This record gives sequence, C-alpha cells and structure tokens, in this order.
Amino acid sequence: MDIAFLLFPGVTQLDLTGPAQVLSRLPGARVHLVWENLDPVPTDAGFSILPNATFADMPSPDLLCVPGGMGIADVIDNEAALGWVRRAGAEAQWVTSVCTGALILGAAGLLEGYQATTHWAWHDKLALFGATPVHARSVMDRNRATGGGVTAGIDFALALTAKIAGDTIARTIQLALEYDPAPPFNAGSVEGAGAEIVAAYTDRANRIAPDRITRLDAAARRLGFTA
Amino acid sequence: MDIAFLLFPGVTQLDLTGPAQVLSRLPGARVHLVWENLDPVPTDAGFSILPNATFADMPSPDLLCVPGGMGIADVIDNEAALGWVRRAGAEAQWVTSVCTGALILGAAGLLEGYQATTHWAWHDKLALFGATPVHARSVMDRNRATGGGVTAGIDFALALTAKIAGDTIARTIQLALEYDPAPPFNAGSVEGAGAEIVAAYTDRANRIAPDRITRLDAAARRLGFTA
Repeated sequence: MDIAFLLFPGVTQLDLTGPAQVLSRLPGARVHLVWENLDPVPTDAGFSILPNATFADMPSPDLLCVPGGMGIADVIDNEAALGWVRRAGAEAQWVTSVCTGALILGAAGLLEGYQATTHWAWHDKLALFGATPVHARSVMDRNRATGGGVTAGIDFALALTAKIAGDTIARTIQLALEYDPAPPFNAGSVEGAGAEIVAAYTDRANRIAPDRITRLDAAARRLGFTA
Repeated sequence: MDIAFLLFPGVTQLDLTGPAQVLSRLPGARVHLVWENLDPVPTDAGFSILPNATFADMPSPDLLCVPGGMGIADVIDNEAALGWVRRAGAEAQWVTSVCTGALILGAAGLLEGYQATTHWAWHDKLALFGATPVHARSVMDRNRATGGGVTAGIDFALALTAKIAGDTIARTIQLALEYDPAPPFNAGSVEGAGAEIVAAYTDRANRIAPDRITRLDAAARRLGFTA
C-alpha cells in the first residue's frame, strides 16, 4: 500500500508525523513524502524533513493524506502542487487530510458534497469549497477521511487503520505507541480552553499570518468555488 | 532557549516530533536536532529527518530531550553520541526523555537516583541504570523529566511547558494543537489492551529486534552499572 503525504514548506509537522507514525505500521505500508523536488522542506517547528518522492514519482498512491499548517495558502496557489493533489485524489482509494490540510483537499475540489472536519479555527471555511463542516475529531464520508487540528491526526489515523486493516491491528499499534492520553490541562477545545486562551491563540495566529483568511477567501474565488 | 533533541537512525520519530511540536512554541525557543553529522537520518517511519546541529555545534543546550526507538542500542554503543548526551545532560537546565530515550539517559549516567518513566515494555529496565521506575505517563524529579511511550511525549511536553513558561502558555499551545484526545479504542495501556494485543505487540518487537533486551543488559554491564 502506497501511502503518500503531501510535504510542503510551512507544514505543521505533527499533522504529518503523527499519522505517519500510525500508518507506517500498517502491514505492507510504504510511506512517501511527496513534494515538487527532493530538497529538504522546512517545517513550522524549526527543522526540515526530507521528501522521498516528487509529484512525478507518485502519480497514484493508494492513500493520499494532506497535512495542514500556515503553508497551505502557498500550496493552494501552486498549480503543480494543487494539480497533483487533484489527480492523486481522483485515483486514490482513500483521500484524507489532517488539520487545515482539508482546505487543500477542498481547493482541489475533492470535498464537494462531502462531510469533513478541520482545525477548529478554520472550521467554517470548509463550506467555501462545498464541504459540510462537521464538529468531530475525525470524520469519514465514503472514502474521504478528515481529522481535526494537529493532534487529531493520531485519532484519525487509528480510526482509518481500523477501517483498512481491522481493529486488532489498530489496537496493537495503539499499544505500541502507548496512546493512553492524559493531557495535563483540559484546554484542547474552545469550550475547555475558555475565552482568554482562545484570544491568546488568535493573537499569535494574527502575528504569524495576518492574511491567512483573506488569502483563502481569494483562492476560493480564483478557483471558481465562490463568486 | 536552546532545545536540543538527539536525532539518531532508528528513532521512533513521533517520540521527537510530538514534543518538538509543543516545545518549539515556547517563547524564544530554538529547536536543534543533533547528531554526529548533518546527513539525513532515517527514522522508523519510512522517511528521514535532517539534523541541524552536530555534537560539536551544540555542547550545552538549555534543554536536552532524548527520544527512543529501536536505534537506542546503537546510540548506547556509540561513544561520541553517549558522550555528548552525558556532557550536555551535565550542563542542561532540563534533562529529559521520551519513551526508551530514558534508557539512553540512564546509560549516560543521568538517571542514577532519579525517578523516571519509559515505554511500558521497557519499564523495569530503568533499574539497570540506577533509576527508580514510576508507572506514570510523565515523571518529574528535580530537573529530570521523562515521558512514557511515544505519544506520552505530547503530555510530557505540555507538562514541561507549564513548568518552564506557565500554565497560560501551555494551555494556548494545547488549544493550537487541538489536543483534546479521543482515541477510537481503549488499547493504549497493557490493562486496556488485554493479553492478546500485548502478545501481538511482543511478536512484532521480537521480529524487528530480537536482541533488544540482551543488548541493553550487555551495555549496562559494559558501562559498569551492573556486574
């Protein structure tokens, strides 16, 4: 099974590395990190990951997974990258995303008429691309599987593993990864975090990428999803 | 704040990438992935990560974090690597590990007389190196902070973030990463997984690294921890 992750500059690396850890343990899995060339790709966390396939090398993976991050706007504006997602997604058995990777799938036209989820702060933007936003950590609609923000990629990948290879394999991977979470705070959701923490998050996002929403809106217009 | 992760061939990449995602968002954090050279380092998940510092480049980080994985025995046998861990750990403000990275800290003499945790399947091996194993997902004893298996690195890093930078910053990072876990199964612990899944895990580990325990026992003798 060829599992292809889109790897791009500005990716939130845990969106990719979390599910890659789970899915790489599927029997027969080959993990491909795909980008336009094989140069190291800088992530959001201060280090680089190496792609191991180009778009030309991996035209039709069995499973496509698109992570998110502040680099998504550049991916959506990159015809080669969006074209690869569109073509790979049209052929793949599973078309999946984590976090704001769902908005790349959306921009590639792969979520029209599907239920999907994404990072909580971007949830209503799924509708720009014809998807129906669902407030859930992991959503499966036919062969589309989407995960919520960042760490949701682990839950999403275990759920997907169970679908693909059965519960026993999914449980064995969960035990191997000792995934028995015990967060020190209840701040992983808007409800749990409260208004002050939500504001602190938004301040930081505005500092890093003040144009993140306007660029997405512009892309939806340019690509013909909205007027 | 210079945060140095040891990056080595055969690392369980999520041991590193999980806490790196959290800790990279500490105010003023610089993330360094340190290895003996700057060549791409193959991880356990089918892709490579690029080191961005050598041992010589990063003699005294503020925070040392050692991940685990099947490559730990080679690290313990590598004098340059173990020597760097020993020296960096002697100077660092925080000496930390995730998963079986605790056994590297132990082999470097950094856990003698400390409480610590590690991956469930290796828990009793901490005593080889003079540490007191504690069954907890995250253990802090003075400036030693250790996390349990793989995904425990996320809980561990949030707890450490709170210690270093306060609860508000830790909660804001938790919300940004939408860490509101909802595993599809209750199989992340030995108790939850049950005997059949534990046996499946052990079979796989025996296939991949049948000598993993004997090599560790031999290293403890060679390094003078045991007779």
